[in-house]
Amino acid sequence: MSRGKFVTIEGCEGVGKTTQVQLLKEKFAGRKDVLFLREPGGTAISESIRKIILDVNNKEMCGLCEVLLYSASRAQLVEQVIKPALDSGVTVICDRFTDSTLAYQGYARGLGEERVETLSGIACAGLTPDVTIFLDLNPAAAFSRKGGADKADRLEQAGEQFHSRVYEGYKRIAEKYPERVVSVPAGGSVEQVHEQIMRVLRQRGVL
Amino acid sequence: MSRGKFVTIEGCEGVGKTTQVQLLKEKFAGRKDVLFLREPGGTAISESIRKIILDVNNKEMCGLCEVLLYSASRAQLVEQVIKPALDSGVTVICDRFTDSTLAYQGYARGLGEERVETLSGIACAGLTPDVTIFLDLNPAAAFSRKGGADKADRLEQAGEQFHSRVYEGYKRIAEKYPERVVSVPAGGSVEQVHEQIMRVLRQRGVL
Repeated sequence: MSRGKFVTIEGCEGVGKTTQVQLLKEKFAGRKDVLFLREPGGTAISESIRKIILDVNNKEMCGLCEVLLYSASRAQLVEQVIKPALDSGVTVICDRFTDSTLAYQGYARGLGEERVETLSGIACAGLTPDVTIFLDLNPAAAFSRKGGADKADRLEQAGEQFHSRVYEGYKRIAEKYPERVVSVPAGGSVEQVHEQIMRVLRQRGVL
Repeated sequence: MSRGKFVTIEGCEGVGKTTQVQLLKEKFAGRKDVLFLREPGGTAISESIRKIILDVNNKEMCGLCEVLLYSASRAQLVEQVIKPALDSGVTVICDRFTDSTLAYQGYARGLGEERVETLSGIACAGLTPDVTIFLDLNPAAAFSRKGGADKADRLEQAGEQFHSRVYEGYKRIAEKYPERVVSVPAGGSVEQVHEQIMRVLRQRGVL
């Protein structure tokens, strides 16, 4: 029995990632050799950690604590679920993984590329995705597709700047790991994007 | 105003660390320029993380997840409490810190020295103790002082082996960082050990 493939799906807020993952789930419904996961979470321990990260009472949480919690949650998911699944021949498709931490915390929140990559390397104990699908759409375009921002809203604008930095982070990751990361233009229709994702999965021997 | 000193107190189970920290607390009772902390914990977020680490339902927690949770808790404590205290001239005395993680998880649990030291370096963002007091007592001696082990108890013996590895880990740390770590023999009476600790603190200009 051959080892399963490890696929991650990445992208900024508003690019339609949730919709695309849902379409893949429907496509592979009933297949026991395909496992869908979502980060952060996926194990009881990871869900407990997720609750701390998302708890609105934890406003004073520093960036380093946050990234270490994401790493702890990921370490447990890798050890308890992902590695055993891959070893038993199951294909694992994960909604967000290390690249999210690198784009959001490393680049956009300014914790730094090297530090976040070192942490991810330790947390995953050497495991990297076989292929990463990056749903590539500029946040401004994604935003205007959703009806546009209220220009009077300062917070909305700040959010847009933040998401632009996340996007730039993803672009750098795609440039840095051209073998692993496949950029899929995400500006087309839901069906078009889905077809492109399926094409990548076929080309990479995932399906 | 000069920066406060950062003191950590380390040692194996059963060496009398809790008693010694309590004596120091009594010695400095009422002094607002001395802050006592205990790891893991010390902030609301760190206490939430501590609960996950200590939850008996989380038996399946892997070693990497555990060490990352300790690191997350520490990052928050350093950022929110220790650094601001030191900056405002307060002396911080912390019951356990990075050396505990290195001795217990790095050496005794076999996660590896380099990996754990890298994580601690990231979590503390460059902060290291000015002086670390290592209460030095072989676990076998600490154990026999407590009345000895039941030799028929296999688990008790396994525990003893584990604590021997922790002790060896501490000895290696003391050798590796001779400037920072002061070994205080902990086999004497409570008063003798307390006097030795006070002498070290005076010599190092902490008090």
